[in-house]
Amino acid sequence: MIQLPQIDGQSEIPVYRQLYEGLKGNILAGQLVDGDRLPPTRDLAQQLGLNRATVSAAYALLEEDGLANGQVGRGSFVQNKAPESQKEISFSTSRPSEELFPLEEVREVTAEVMRRSAAQVLQLGSPLGYGPLRTYLMEEAIGEGVFDPQEDDLLITSGCQQALDLIHKALIGPGGLVYTEEPVYPGVRNVFGRDLTVDANQSGIEAMIVTPSFRNPTGYTMSLSERQEIAEAARVGRRLLIEVDIYARLRYEGEALPTIRALGAGTQALLLRSFSKIAFPGLRVGWVIGPKALIQKLATAKQWTDLHSDQLSQAILLEFARSGKLEKHLARVLDAGRIRLSTTIEMLERVLPAGSRFTRPQGGMNLWVTLPRGCDSGAVLEKARRHGVSYLPGRYFSVSAPMNESFRLSFAGQSPARIVEGLKRLGPLFEEEAKIASRYEDRLPEMAMV
Amino acid sequence: MIQLPQIDGQSEIPVYRQLYEGLKGNILAGQLVDGDRLPPTRDLAQQLGLNRATVSAAYALLEEDGLANGQVGRGSFVQNKAPESQKEISFSTSRPSEELFPLEEVREVTAEVMRRSAAQVLQLGSPLGYGPLRTYLMEEAIGEGVFDPQEDDLLITSGCQQALDLIHKALIGPGGLVYTEEPVYPGVRNVFGRDLTVDANQSGIEAMIVTPSFRNPTGYTMSLSERQEIAEAARVGRRLLIEVDIYARLRYEGEALPTIRALGAGTQALLLRSFSKIAFPGLRVGWVIGPKALIQKLATAKQWTDLHSDQLSQAILLEFARSGKLEKHLARVLDAGRIRLSTTIEMLERVLPAGSRFTRPQGGMNLWVTLPRGCDSGAVLEKARRHGVSYLPGRYFSVSAPMNESFRLSFAGQSPARIVEGLKRLGPLFEEEAKIASRYEDRLPEMAMV
Repeated sequence: MIQLPQIDGQSEIPVYRQLYEGLKGNILAGQLVDGDRLPPTRDLAQQLGLNRATVSAAYALLEEDGLANGQVGRGSFVQNKAPESQKEISFSTSRPSEELFPLEEVREVTAEVMRRSAAQVLQLGSPLGYGPLRTYLMEEAIGEGVFDPQEDDLLITSGCQQALDLIHKALIGPGGLVYTEEPVYPGVRNVFGRDLTVDANQSGIEAMIVTPSFRNPTGYTMSLSERQEIAEAARVGRRLLIEVDIYARLRYEGEALPTIRALGAGTQALLLRSFSKIAFPGLRVGWVIGPKALIQKLATAKQWTDLHSDQLSQAILLEFARSGKLEKHLARVLDAGRIRLSTTIEMLERVLPAGSRFTRPQGGMNLWVTLPRGCDSGAVLEKARRHGVSYLPGRYFSVSAPMNESFRLSFAGQSPARIVEGLKRLGPLFEEEAKIASRYEDRLPEMAMV
Repeated sequence: MIQLPQIDGQSEIPVYRQLYEGLKGNILAGQLVDGDRLPPTRDLAQQLGLNRATVSAAYALLEEDGLANGQVGRGSFVQNKAPESQKEISFSTSRPSEELFPLEEVREVTAEVMRRSAAQVLQLGSPLGYGPLRTYLMEEAIGEGVFDPQEDDLLITSGCQQALDLIHKALIGPGGLVYTEEPVYPGVRNVFGRDLTVDANQSGIEAMIVTPSFRNPTGYTMSLSERQEIAEAARVGRRLLIEVDIYARLRYEGEALPTIRALGAGTQALLLRSFSKIAFPGLRVGWVIGPKALIQKLATAKQWTDLHSDQLSQAILLEFARSGKLEKHLARVLDAGRIRLSTTIEMLERVLPAGSRFTRPQGGMNLWVTLPRGCDSGAVLEKARRHGVSYLPGRYFSVSAPMNESFRLSFAGQSPARIVEGLKRLGPLFEEEAKIASRYEDRLPEMAMV
C-alpha cells in the first residue's frame, strides 16, 4: 500500500501538483515499483477528499514523466523505466537524436515567439502557411537560386509526408503512373500505392519522385550527371518532378550538389523540404516550392485537408532559423552524424558475414545492408529483438522486388557507444543466418531467363 | 530617404534586432509611411556593411509586427496599419475572438510544457496522438459517458477538418452516399463532394454527417427527440454516424443536451471534437472518438497523411485544460458570447427589412439570415465591402438549393460595439436590396408543381 501524500489545501501549489509530487516521491524511493497498479482515481479521490479530475491530472503528470502508464479503463500502472543501457537499441527509425536537441535554446525561442506573436499564432491562419515563415523561406530559396519570384510560390505543409499526400490528391490524375526509385521510403509507397512504377521506361508516366541526396532507405546520392539526366527526363517528357530534398543538408563529407530543380527540370518541378530531419520532427513543418499554379492547387487541397498547419511550430522554427540557432544546431548535428556514420561503417566491416554488402553514404541518417544470398533479414530481426536491437527489414521498402536479404540501418539516432554495442550483438546473429542460408544455397531457385 | 539606423557591432543585441528597432522607430515616427518601399535587402546590406540575411531578418520582424509587407521578388513595403476602428468588420469567419485569448496564461502553460516535456514533444511521435493528451481526453469522455474503454479508442487529428478528410479517405467506400444537412459547412461539402446527399430517404446512404448543436452555418440545435431519431436511423440502418460536436460547449443559455452517440447510435458512431472553437484555432488540435476498429483505420490513414499532429500544441492544450485554465477561459468566452449573440439579435430586429427571417440560436458562433424573397445576399456583399463590412453569402453553404437570399452572420469574433456598427451599416443596404427585389417580385418564376 502506498503512503498517502500530504495535501495542503492552503498551499499556492495546486492540489494535483502536490499529489503528483507525493506519488513521484513514492516511485523514486522505490515504495511503488514497476508494474504496481496505482489506486483507481475514484478510490484515491475519496480517500483524500479530492475531486476525481484532480487525481487524474496527477496521474497524467506521472505518465508524462514516464513514471506511470495509463491504460484507459484498466487503471494506471507504475512504470519505473529501465536505465538507458537496458533500453532497446533501435536502428529502425530515420529520425534525429533527441540527445542533440538544444532544449534551452528552443525554450528561449518559444518564449520569444509567445511574447511577440501569441495572439497571431493562436488565431486561425492561412492555408498557405504562417506569413513570416513563408517570406523567410522564399528569401532563402531565392538566395540559393531555386525560387523565381515571378514564377514560383511556396506552401507550408505538415512535414514532407503531407506534401506527398497533397500532391497525390491534387496533382496526379486517376490512373496516372508515378515513377519511383526502389527501395523506397514506405511513406511514398503508402501514399501513391498502385500508381507507382519502378520502370522508368514504362509508358504513361506522369510524375517522378526522386530523392537525390542521401535517399531513405539506402543513403544513395545521385551524381551531378544523374541529376542532369533526371532534370532532362522531366523537362523533355513534361513530367511532374517531385524532388524530396529533406536530407541534403545532413552532409558529413564531400561536396554539396545542386538540386535537380536548379538544373532546369522544366515547368513542373516541385521541391519538398522539411525541418524534421535538420531540427525537430515533433513540430510538423515542411514546405513545397513550385510553380504558382501547382502551389495554388496544393493550397486548395491543403485547406480542405486540415485548414492549415499548426502556427506556433511554424513561428518557433522561423525564429530558430532566423536567429542563427538552427545553423549552430546543424553544425553540432553534422559533427555527431559524421562520427556515428564512420562508427557504423567500421563496425559493419567487422561484424558482417563474408558476402555481405552495404552502402557507404556521405551523409543522411540511413544505410542499406544486404546479407549474403538466401538470408532473411526479417527472421534475424526476431532474434535481434530478443537481444534488444532492432532495424527495419527490406520488405518495408519494396515496390516490386522482395529484398528479404536487405535491411535499413538508421544510425543517426544512436550514440556511437550504442552503435558499437548494437552491432556487436547483431554480428553473431547474422553469422548464424549466413551459415543456415549457405547450407541451402544450391537449392535456391534461380530467376527464369527471359 | 530613410535615416539609416546606427548599428553597434559590439552590442549584445544581435545586429538584425538593432536594425529592426531602428526601422521600426522610423515607421512609428512617421518618417516611413504606409506604402513606402523599404530599400532592397541587397542595397541596405551594402550600405551598412551587413550580410543580406541580416537585413532580411530585420524586415521579417517588421512584417510580423504588421509594419511591413514583404512581396517576394518585389521588395518590402511599409504598412502602417489603420487603427482598429478603420478595419473591416468581418462577420465572415466562424472563429473565436482573439481579444479574449488569455495570452499570459498560455505563455505560462507553454513555458511549463517546454520545461517539462521539451525533448518528448520535439521528437517524432505516434500517429494516434500525444499519449498524455489522449489519456486525458479518454478519461474525460469516460466521465461524460461517451467512451467505453472496452470498445472505443481515440485519435488526435489536426482539427476537426482533418477528421472529416480522414473519414472520407478511410471509411467511405467508392460511390458510398453520405447524408448531410443543408445548408452545410463548406469544409464538409469540399471533402465529401459528390458523395453528399441532402435526401435522408435516398437509397445507398452509408453514412450521416450531423452537427446536433449550434450547427454551422445556421446555429440550429436538434431537440432531444430529433437526436433520438438520428441515433435510431444510424443504429437500425447500420450507418456510419459522423457527429460533429465542436460547438456544443459554447452554450450561452438553455440546457445542454446529450450527444447522439450517448443515445445509442449503434456500433459505428464517431464523435468529432476540437479545441478550435473553445480555445485556439491556430493550434490545430481536434480528436475523434469511435469504435476501436474504425479508429485503427483512421490512424493508419493519418500516418500516411502527415505522420502525426504537431506535439507541442497537443501538450500545451493538455496543460491548458488540465490546469483548469480552459474552464476559466470558457467561462469568459460564454459571458462574452452571450452578450454578442443578444446584441446581434437586437440589432437584426432593428435593421432587417420586413419579410426577413433569422435563426435564434442559444449558443455557438453563427446565425443565418434570410432576406425577403428575390434578394441577392451576394450582390449586397459587394456594397457591404465598400462600407467595411463582410459576411458569407448562402451559396457557400449550398449542396442542392441555391440559397441566394440567405447569408451566414458569424458574430462571435466581433465586439458588441463593432456588431452594432457593422449591422447599422448593413441595414440600409438590405433595405435597398429588398426594395429592388419587391419591384420584380411578380416576375419571379415559381417552382413547377409536381
